[in-house]
Amino acid sequence: MSLLLNGLAASNGIAIAPAYLLVGSDLPVQKQHTNDKDHEVTRLHDSFAFSRQELRRIRDQAHERLGQRAAAVVDTQLAMLGDPALFAMMRQEIMQSGVTAEWAVKQTADHYLTIFEKQNDNDYLQARGTAMRDVAKRLLSHLMAVELPDPQKLDHRAIIVAANITPTDTAQFDRRYVAGLVTDTGGRTSHFTIMSRTLSLPVVVGTKIATTEIQNGDLLIVDGIHGKVIVRPTEEELEQYRLLAGKFAREQEAWGAVRNQQTISADGRHFEVAANVGTLADMEDARKNGAEGIGLLRTEFLYMNQSRLPSEEEQFRAYKQFVAGMNEKRVVARTLDVGGDKRLGMVPLPSEANPYLGFRAIRIGLARPEILRPQLRALLRASVYGRLAIMFPMVATLEEFHQARAILEEERAQLSSAGIPLAQNVELGMMLEIPAVAMMADIFATEVDFFSIGSNDLIQYLFAADRGNPRVAYLYQELHPAVLRTVKRVIDAAHAEGKWVGMCGEMAGNPLAAPLLMGMGLDEFSMNSNQILQIRSLIKKMNTRQLQPLVHRALNAQSAPEVAELVRTAIPELNR
Amino acid sequence: MSLLLNGLAASNGIAIAPAYLLVGSDLPVQKQHTNDKDHEVTRLHDSFAFSRQELRRIRDQAHERLGQRAAAVVDTQLAMLGDPALFAMMRQEIMQSGVTAEWAVKQTADHYLTIFEKQNDNDYLQARGTAMRDVAKRLLSHLMAVELPDPQKLDHRAIIVAANITPTDTAQFDRRYVAGLVTDTGGRTSHFTIMSRTLSLPVVVGTKIATTEIQNGDLLIVDGIHGKVIVRPTEEELEQYRLLAGKFAREQEAWGAVRNQQTISADGRHFEVAANVGTLADMEDARKNGAEGIGLLRTEFLYMNQSRLPSEEEQFRAYKQFVAGMNEKRVVARTLDVGGDKRLGMVPLPSEANPYLGFRAIRIGLARPEILRPQLRALLRASVYGRLAIMFPMVATLEEFHQARAILEEERAQLSSAGIPLAQNVELGMMLEIPAVAMMADIFATEVDFFSIGSNDLIQYLFAADRGNPRVAYLYQELHPAVLRTVKRVIDAAHAEGKWVGMCGEMAGNPLAAPLLMGMGLDEFSMNSNQILQIRSLIKKMNTRQLQPLVHRALNAQSAPEVAELVRTAIPELNR
Repeated sequence: MSLLLNGLAASNGIAIAPAYLLVGSDLPVQKQHTNDKDHEVTRLHDSFAFSRQELRRIRDQAHERLGQRAAAVVDTQLAMLGDPALFAMMRQEIMQSGVTAEWAVKQTADHYLTIFEKQNDNDYLQARGTAMRDVAKRLLSHLMAVELPDPQKLDHRAIIVAANITPTDTAQFDRRYVAGLVTDTGGRTSHFTIMSRTLSLPVVVGTKIATTEIQNGDLLIVDGIHGKVIVRPTEEELEQYRLLAGKFAREQEAWGAVRNQQTISADGRHFEVAANVGTLADMEDARKNGAEGIGLLRTEFLYMNQSRLPSEEEQFRAYKQFVAGMNEKRVVARTLDVGGDKRLGMVPLPSEANPYLGFRAIRIGLARPEILRPQLRALLRASVYGRLAIMFPMVATLEEFHQARAILEEERAQLSSAGIPLAQNVELGMMLEIPAVAMMADIFATEVDFFSIGSNDLIQYLFAADRGNPRVAYLYQELHPAVLRTVKRVIDAAHAEGKWVGMCGEMAGNPLAAPLLMGMGLDEFSMNSNQILQIRSLIKKMNTRQLQPLVHRALNAQSAPEVAELVRTAIPELNR
Repeated sequence: MSLLLNGLAASNGIAIAPAYLLVGSDLPVQKQHTNDKDHEVTRLHDSFAFSRQELRRIRDQAHERLGQRAAAVVDTQLAMLGDPALFAMMRQEIMQSGVTAEWAVKQTADHYLTIFEKQNDNDYLQARGTAMRDVAKRLLSHLMAVELPDPQKLDHRAIIVAANITPTDTAQFDRRYVAGLVTDTGGRTSHFTIMSRTLSLPVVVGTKIATTEIQNGDLLIVDGIHGKVIVRPTEEELEQYRLLAGKFAREQEAWGAVRNQQTISADGRHFEVAANVGTLADMEDARKNGAEGIGLLRTEFLYMNQSRLPSEEEQFRAYKQFVAGMNEKRVVARTLDVGGDKRLGMVPLPSEANPYLGFRAIRIGLARPEILRPQLRALLRASVYGRLAIMFPMVATLEEFHQARAILEEERAQLSSAGIPLAQNVELGMMLEIPAVAMMADIFATEVDFFSIGSNDLIQYLFAADRGNPRVAYLYQELHPAVLRTVKRVIDAAHAEGKWVGMCGEMAGNPLAAPLLMGMGLDEFSMNSNQILQIRSLIKKMNTRQLQPLVHRALNAQSAPEVAELVRTAIPELNR
């Protein structure tokens, strides 16, 4: 008899392979006294050095393989290890109480954890708690000469099964061998779930019991389409899933056929399907998937894993690679977007009661022009190598846009008068992710060259709901009429002034939203590269004129489920 | 020569009186060992008991005199004292290291403070740091038999001067003797500044140097209109300020003349000017200031300082007092609005990364109907004693409103079938404070009896800016055209369905906003009672028809300063 585990489909596709369990063991520590305190301090010191070295390697892997977000999590742990206070407290424990380094690590970590977890069980502190736990474990593994479970040891094609998978784990996998992933924990909006969408692997999260029910080597079917895991499947189940996997592969193939085609609707309207890109590897993916441009170049990658701000020259060289690499296709670069849940070592930011409503993005750029100016200079210098557009993130008021634009114009004038070659036609736009800006879109539209709707943040603010918070994530509703009306208001206002509108949030890659966005006249859809071909296939089949009654009904619907139903009824192929 | 200190005008009016310095002394502690550890533990224990007792008294005073917000701050300190972990850590310090209770308190507090302040300097932890500092000081004052500076000792009319004034301080003042307040710290959006607006006292905050420049007994002029403090004023200055104080008093008097009048504009339109009320004392103020109703009854007061949820019966008795007390004037009761920055001991809530975008208000009510149901029953039972309306806070979707209304209808049916008398005409509405709801106002308007615009939260979400965060508080702009357009959209949608619209955020009491809100047709203005007469006087002078060109220009303006200028130009009396 096979066993069925239900979870949440976090990434598409079907995998059939044996299980590889990645289960961490506890490292029990006993209180022991020592006669040689200095020796214990030396051991402690060495364990810090080894751990830092190890984490730096993991961070670089994470950055290379998974991008900045994964690397940032490792950075948190590195920052903890680099904090002199942590080492000082552990050393004090040894010197005062005469205990071993192991006990000092355990005592100090437990002490922090008590405070992090008991006194203030907020998400931020919980994340720090998780980091502290990992750091302590790594220190202990060196002190006790015990190896931590090592994802790098995977040497055959398998499905990884774990309680949860941290970015440090993911960074270490050899992607050639990983056929799929199954976890006990994780919800729709957890970081791992979101990240796993970029892996193009079948992933099922939140099974609760996978690690207790699955043995190493068990044959598994991971159904990342429906969120199921079948343990020790029967021949019949294997047969059924091989068929399903075949169907999935054919669909992928059909999408592949549109790779080198333009995105033109059945009634001849051209839409641009572009990619969200954060690294050179992302750009490679974008080209492979036939992106018609980069709709969002996240420039944060240049600032990650650095101890200082990148120089203008470093930035120039990097931007040039993207601008030149896209062969005259448009590259929309967003200026530095930190703050909120994104932090940088060399731009120290205060922690805030509500970081999503705090000091972030262009708010930082305007307060600290010494960061913004070299970035703008580097971008302008790179503009001659292709087709560059620049946009500012989180603009809330016209004054902010004016200030940012004035800084850009000053830098442009300076470069020009220094005889540096610049493109004449660098489009200047802004992210539209703040409700007040949607209300004022008609006025902004007279001043910008384009808007790029950041649907992720916009929806969070529209509903006053942090989608990373499981208690209110249900209010993050891409298909809600309030979202559609807001988007329509922006598109209409922009078109009235002859400006174009893109969208670079996750909604742009949602097949249920695409027909509505097309029907409302969205000009550019920018998304993770692995969604491009599906959305392009869909757009090519539709007729924008025929979509108008659907759009009208959706705008007058009362709820997101009602809109989803309307779309599914109008476009039966979206049912599956 | 007199000395001029510039600060921020936090509350109106002018006071002339001698200074009374409220400056806390440090309590220096030396490390000392003891031979009688048990005795030290007993002393520690006693200091906890005394401190708790003292704080409970302060909390009750705070609640009575200042309302729930002030009491909540004291509750944080009480919760710390009640946490067994804190006592356990201090006791362990005594038992392990053989030190005095004083040293154990100091060591443990310092330890927490290091973590609170160094490792995570976020607002939440800073607040906890402040609380920890106060708690430690109080414990030490008992251990060392030193008295803390005691605001209760003030026995003559004076102006309090302090580095900062905590709610614990404010609760202890004898209000008969406090002529005004001056602090070193505090910004436009700090809690004390906001709270001081309800004190009807001249208050100047953020002078930076008041406590170093002012001596006990110095004669002071506190100009709470312009944010100035004059130390040891000259005769000339005294004369000038006596004139100004006279003018201010006459203005107050003119406002007083409209106390018992209806709020009818020059062209005969009736507006309702109502009060925001959180306690019975607030209702007294509301009646004194001629409120035409209670536009916002904050029901949280019943839940404060309780170890358990209030029973239906307790709630019924309380609501009845308000409903009956307003003599057939409308009382709009808001169901429990906790979460965000409002926390309750007996409704434990998780701390969240972004509490303003988190689990709060009706989101909690729907998730925990065992809290919502008895409140609705109590309100319905109180409805027969006057004119009650009920509204739900933070509704984001129509589904939420439907769910909340269904619960209300179930309770109404049950009470009816039990033969309990209920009013037939209890209006049912909702707070409008989420941008998505403004976008959907036309649809909501077909279902609600009224909207009450919660401008404070609405503006925060519109601009994605936490106004409590000094780095982004500049984005909280009541007069911004994006706000005005949103409000207009709501009013128009409601009026199209024959429904009324109120506003119970601070914007409703802003004299620069009032003409615009009038012109757009806002039906009810609800505010702190001490603003009622000024707003009523203003409304009575205006002609709504003549305001239309101003409204039109404001809606098409580009920025908040431009709107302010338009209003000041159109209505010169607002310049001063």
